[in-house]
Amino acid sequence: MKEVRITFVGFGTVGQGCAKHLVRSKRYLKKEFGFNYKVVAISDIVKGSVRNEKQGLDLPKALDLCARGKKLDDGELKGEIGLSPIDTIKTSKADMVVEATWTNLKDGEPGLTHIVTALKSGKDVATSNKGPIALAYKKLVNLAKSKGRQLRFESTVMSGTPVFSLREFCLRGAQIIGIRGILNGTTNYILTEMAAGKSYTETLKKTQELGYAEAEPSGDVEAFDPAAKITILANALMDAEVDFADVEREGITRISSDDITKAAQNSKRIKLIATATRGEDGCVKASVKPTLLPDSDMLAHVNGVMNALQIMMNVQPDVTVIGPGAGGDSAGYGLMSDILAIHNLKVKRRR
Amino acid sequence: MKEVRITFVGFGTVGQGCAKHLVRSKRYLKKEFGFNYKVVAISDIVKGSVRNEKQGLDLPKALDLCARGKKLDDGELKGEIGLSPIDTIKTSKADMVVEATWTNLKDGEPGLTHIVTALKSGKDVATSNKGPIALAYKKLVNLAKSKGRQLRFESTVMSGTPVFSLREFCLRGAQIIGIRGILNGTTNYILTEMAAGKSYTETLKKTQELGYAEAEPSGDVEAFDPAAKITILANALMDAEVDFADVEREGITRISSDDITKAAQNSKRIKLIATATRGEDGCVKASVKPTLLPDSDMLAHVNGVMNALQIMMNVQPDVTVIGPGAGGDSAGYGLMSDILAIHNLKVKRRR
Repeated sequence: MKEVRITFVGFGTVGQGCAKHLVRSKRYLKKEFGFNYKVVAISDIVKGSVRNEKQGLDLPKALDLCARGKKLDDGELKGEIGLSPIDTIKTSKADMVVEATWTNLKDGEPGLTHIVTALKSGKDVATSNKGPIALAYKKLVNLAKSKGRQLRFESTVMSGTPVFSLREFCLRGAQIIGIRGILNGTTNYILTEMAAGKSYTETLKKTQELGYAEAEPSGDVEAFDPAAKITILANALMDAEVDFADVEREGITRISSDDITKAAQNSKRIKLIATATRGEDGCVKASVKPTLLPDSDMLAHVNGVMNALQIMMNVQPDVTVIGPGAGGDSAGYGLMSDILAIHNLKVKRRR
Repeated sequence: MKEVRITFVGFGTVGQGCAKHLVRSKRYLKKEFGFNYKVVAISDIVKGSVRNEKQGLDLPKALDLCARGKKLDDGELKGEIGLSPIDTIKTSKADMVVEATWTNLKDGEPGLTHIVTALKSGKDVATSNKGPIALAYKKLVNLAKSKGRQLRFESTVMSGTPVFSLREFCLRGAQIIGIRGILNGTTNYILTEMAAGKSYTETLKKTQELGYAEAEPSGDVEAFDPAAKITILANALMDAEVDFADVEREGITRISSDDITKAAQNSKRIKLIATATRGEDGCVKASVKPTLLPDSDMLAHVNGVMNALQIMMNVQPDVTVIGPGAGGDSAGYGLMSDILAIHNLKVKRRR
């Protein structure tokens, strides 16, 4: 197999997470899949930009620079510096772009333009960026199709826990009639801690210290993040046409310790549950809201930063997948699994 | 896409389950995948054998005959009758054989010979039969490889809940370092009922009445069934060389209501847990035994006939999949998903 040329746009926790997996797995990927790669450019708004199409970049060194708090364009990496992300995408001769910039749920930028530019210039795209996929799924999928390129986005929902590839490759021939899940790790962590007796304020502060929640936490606690995720899931898994703006959304800020104690007295738990259901009119409706779950509900037992998705289908009873919902390792692995899926790489059966 | 010609060998609950899905989904499969099929032969040791290579068999009628307790060879279905399963496989011009005969963990027969014969005569195989895969995985995979045919067996473990396709298509590039799960629905149902205050004897009787357990229940309660499944999982997911006979195995017959009550008093549950772990010497060891699980363990909350598998890997925290572990609908869907995977059919993105 030929060497796959990769350009990274966005090289924060998730982009670096993917790069670490690629470095650690280099030998294994070559041995198991015959897969070889070369990272030809990295462009990050904070860490700078560097490109070396001919020799490829020294990826371990790039990661080391980041670990030491240095910039990518300080001269230690051999290559051309100073290109903007857009110019990097446009001019790079990469086969694929790994887009891992920050999520913007207002207009999807700059990720949206990055992905459009990459597809238009004939490159496959793997992205962890929820913004463009939540806001412009239809447009992006159509563009990828018209250009004969692939667009994969496993890590946008439940990080490296498979949901999109699960539907695509493991539930073939099944029609998905509904989904429900716990899609935000921060709020699930807060609710778990509150169930153990902690206060909302105390726990929120702790999640901010741990780096789970932003200083401005409304993306999580007001449920914008899981609303974006259920939008993506509904559209990609159920072939729906859900608009992010139309998702019924209620966060966890109005839940008191009292509510949780009362629930526990009745052997119940409060969880922030995202759902998408196809109505009798064929339309899919999506919502995110705090929900009282009985002890018999598997999702009642998904605790801490774990995420879960329950998939209802026409062919058999529900299948539920539970796994990490955040973190550089997991989201980075989600990106790597996309890279391998784009090239349709399968584990060899040696025997 | 050309029409795929299918031969069924074994047409009990699971074979019929697959056939029902194929009938119900015929239009959908054509529309979504351009997939068309023709069932050219069915051979069942009890229901008889019928073959019609040219026109194909009337599958809805075959199912109707079974529903009415009639035999397949009573003249209502047009075609040649009386061929043995082996002759059906050998002489049929099918592209693939769906092998759904009963599991035999002594020598894998007759399924083993059916699969070998199918592969040798150049046919792909989808099987729900645990015997041949648990006892002769290496031999069968090698044979399939040497013949350039595919052998898929999704429904041998956890029925239609994806585990093999999950590893193959969704966890690409990950190295599996361990697995643990609840792989037998009958014993999990018994343990769940016992935790709710019922006695072992009473519950076993009920599972036999419900058709979950056999009249001779040792395959379940002495854990032969989950031992076969963990053998298959270890070999297929971890590239191990586990022998079924070497699996450490303890059933649930020695568990008393007292044990379960005591566990509950400490917020614990007893579950029949199958595990496979790679030791420091690189060898994989597998076991099945009753295990005391804390409330914080997700598997403690998998109840009734549900099955679950937790997958530990090198790239990210564990992923757990939970779903149906038995039943004609689910196992039949597992077979259908194998048929579609063999032909690498993917859901079209319409937009």
